[in-house]
Amino acid sequence: MRRSNISINLERLMRTIEISGEIGELSKGGICRLALTDEDKQMRDLFVEWMKMIDLEVRVDDFGNIYGRKEGEDSSAPAILIGSHLDTQPEGGRYDGILGVLTALEVLTTFHEQNKVFNNPIEIVNFTNEEGARFSPPLLGSGGLSEQFTKEFIYSRTDANKNTFEEELKRIGYQGCKKNRINNIGSYLELHIEQGPILERNGLDIGVVTGIQGMSWMEVKITGKSDHAGSTPMNMRTDALQIATKLIQKITDFVVEYDNKALITIGRFIAYPNSINSIPSEVIFSMDIRHSNDTIKEYLTNIVMEKLNVMACAENASIEINKIWNAESVDFSDCLIQTISKNAKDLGYSNQKIVSGAGHDAKYMNKLGLTSMIFVPSQGGKSHCQEEFTSKNSIEKGANLLLYTVCQLAKEVETLN
Amino acid sequence: MRRSNISINLERLMRTIEISGEIGELSKGGICRLALTDEDKQMRDLFVEWMKMIDLEVRVDDFGNIYGRKEGEDSSAPAILIGSHLDTQPEGGRYDGILGVLTALEVLTTFHEQNKVFNNPIEIVNFTNEEGARFSPPLLGSGGLSEQFTKEFIYSRTDANKNTFEEELKRIGYQGCKKNRINNIGSYLELHIEQGPILERNGLDIGVVTGIQGMSWMEVKITGKSDHAGSTPMNMRTDALQIATKLIQKITDFVVEYDNKALITIGRFIAYPNSINSIPSEVIFSMDIRHSNDTIKEYLTNIVMEKLNVMACAENASIEINKIWNAESVDFSDCLIQTISKNAKDLGYSNQKIVSGAGHDAKYMNKLGLTSMIFVPSQGGKSHCQEEFTSKNSIEKGANLLLYTVCQLAKEVETLN
Repeated sequence: MRRSNISINLERLMRTIEISGEIGELSKGGICRLALTDEDKQMRDLFVEWMKMIDLEVRVDDFGNIYGRKEGEDSSAPAILIGSHLDTQPEGGRYDGILGVLTALEVLTTFHEQNKVFNNPIEIVNFTNEEGARFSPPLLGSGGLSEQFTKEFIYSRTDANKNTFEEELKRIGYQGCKKNRINNIGSYLELHIEQGPILERNGLDIGVVTGIQGMSWMEVKITGKSDHAGSTPMNMRTDALQIATKLIQKITDFVVEYDNKALITIGRFIAYPNSINSIPSEVIFSMDIRHSNDTIKEYLTNIVMEKLNVMACAENASIEINKIWNAESVDFSDCLIQTISKNAKDLGYSNQKIVSGAGHDAKYMNKLGLTSMIFVPSQGGKSHCQEEFTSKNSIEKGANLLLYTVCQLAKEVETLN
Repeated sequence: MRRSNISINLERLMRTIEISGEIGELSKGGICRLALTDEDKQMRDLFVEWMKMIDLEVRVDDFGNIYGRKEGEDSSAPAILIGSHLDTQPEGGRYDGILGVLTALEVLTTFHEQNKVFNNPIEIVNFTNEEGARFSPPLLGSGGLSEQFTKEFIYSRTDANKNTFEEELKRIGYQGCKKNRINNIGSYLELHIEQGPILERNGLDIGVVTGIQGMSWMEVKITGKSDHAGSTPMNMRTDALQIATKLIQKITDFVVEYDNKALITIGRFIAYPNSINSIPSEVIFSMDIRHSNDTIKEYLTNIVMEKLNVMACAENASIEINKIWNAESVDFSDCLIQTISKNAKDLGYSNQKIVSGAGHDAKYMNKLGLTSMIFVPSQGGKSHCQEEFTSKNSIEKGANLLLYTVCQLAKEVETLN
């Protein structure tokens, strides 16, 4: 086991996590910090201030992505980019992408404190609207940077109150310039919580992420007939809610029985007119189907849509299904995966290779440079909820692995002993 | 068949229905006119103006109920009260209670036009918040008048935005005085659409309402665990939405199989956090159970609650069930039922006795005076929806039956020939 001569300051890192946890804080310790809200602005302002305190050169691009650059001896060399996102779900936790941004900040703070000099530039990044909870689809900041979405598409996304991404970006003062986009990336490395139960269950410190599983998002609208709840016999109803609940049960059973590695989630469900004594005329629900094998995911998506159509027809309801997002699975850089695995071993951290069940900015950054991710365990596998928790010990190991790997990738000018 | 020497002006009545239909009008011809909103105020202002035009003496009581009085020869005699309510469901129709208020207005307009004189005073009433769609429970205006609810209770009811009944009553300028409550009622007669399919199916003109079926309202909260939709295996989830949909299917099947006259409706359904890629942690839904037999309704309510508790426990979810409203069935005045039946026959209108599936202001007015209702057919049994429709022909018959019956009850001073 080889030891690094340098390590992060855990207490300092935990303080930044704590301060971040107060911005948009919820009653049970979680955070509501949707992209481009006042809370997001408050966190961004603080993050920028923290980066300036360690002499990073701060830039904001036209998608609101924030960068902090530590210049390299060779300023034209490709940058080593590290970071994640500071936005959360409506009822999110304190770690999620936040941990990736704040460990990156801690790594750069450690370098600053110790006057480290590197050949390559190192940049931290905070991506805009990773969650997709306010503006759909998710990953708008990294998707814009990697040209997966046009600027017009991103700017015209609206939230539930019809505010556009562009209006909100301007309103909070984070509409930067196109020339500020990072354009020469060597490697992108993102630390994130696992958001699942596997590392904890296997008693491991680190997950070295080999890729991201594919997913398919749909919106289903079922239209029945709204009648009075007191005077319409049960056999004369076309109750959109009763039909929706029946269909949800049947397709979930089907997916689970077909392949126990497949995932199906109905996260959103809205009934109209949503009044106690009116039979619901319409229900809209979301459907999220995932599998690490794209062929199986595609098959399940198609067969579920077909089943929904047939079953709704049998119930005399009309149905409309829109595919709102589809993501193929992604494979990260073998070279970077090997480097991280070796480094984890060097530092004495138990680890395994793992596929990410969730989407991450790394998915799009994979198109711009060598990319991989470091996962740290999530207690009880919990994520996107207030109870989300990763222990100090796990955070320390993840942050030191990030630091150690960045030292290598950016080529420290003074050699490690 | 005996004919009345007096009849309403159908075209004039249809014009008032049309004008009312424009206040809070929805895209498919329905109305959204929730109690104590700006739209309700606009309709009330117009209604008051219409009553003043036919020399009625207008009063508003402390619940916002509006009365228009035509004095009788004997001003101390009990009043004949006719009317209903002008508020609607969020996606309601143009008829519902509105028809009861506007046919009452047409009856009084006809009397005014023909200088009719009666022994007893006649009053029209528009009750506040019959629907219960904005402020729960329903029937707050008639419930206050008949002292089923205290004034404190009614004033403290809140809508979804935490506005109280009292604030909103004041805001729209309809907080009158307690002394304006009507206090000497001989009979209360309410014309209403059937809101069900029975009269149409039987090809009849009129339903003479013998009473109101009992109902029981509950709110069910199911709490699971919110986890990430991409990284939590299906067998490690406690998905509140999946559990809620399963339970809804099972209790609905149970109720329908137990007694095909029983009704169960899940009208409201709210999921938290309601985000595509979060497993729902909580679902709240309403449950409305009705039966014309109170014993069966009570039995079904209790057994459904028990089943929900057992099933939620088996799913490792926690469950909370609150009974939010219970209404015993109501029997109307035999004497009035006979009078209306006889009058319908006199006028040549085919009719049947019918139990109301829905609650009405008549339910509480039954405690203050002889009460019954006149139902007119609902096309397709539709109600509480934009497609709600009652034909002109049916409206004319219902209004003339109301007019003819009021003439008798109020004792016309000049005898009919």
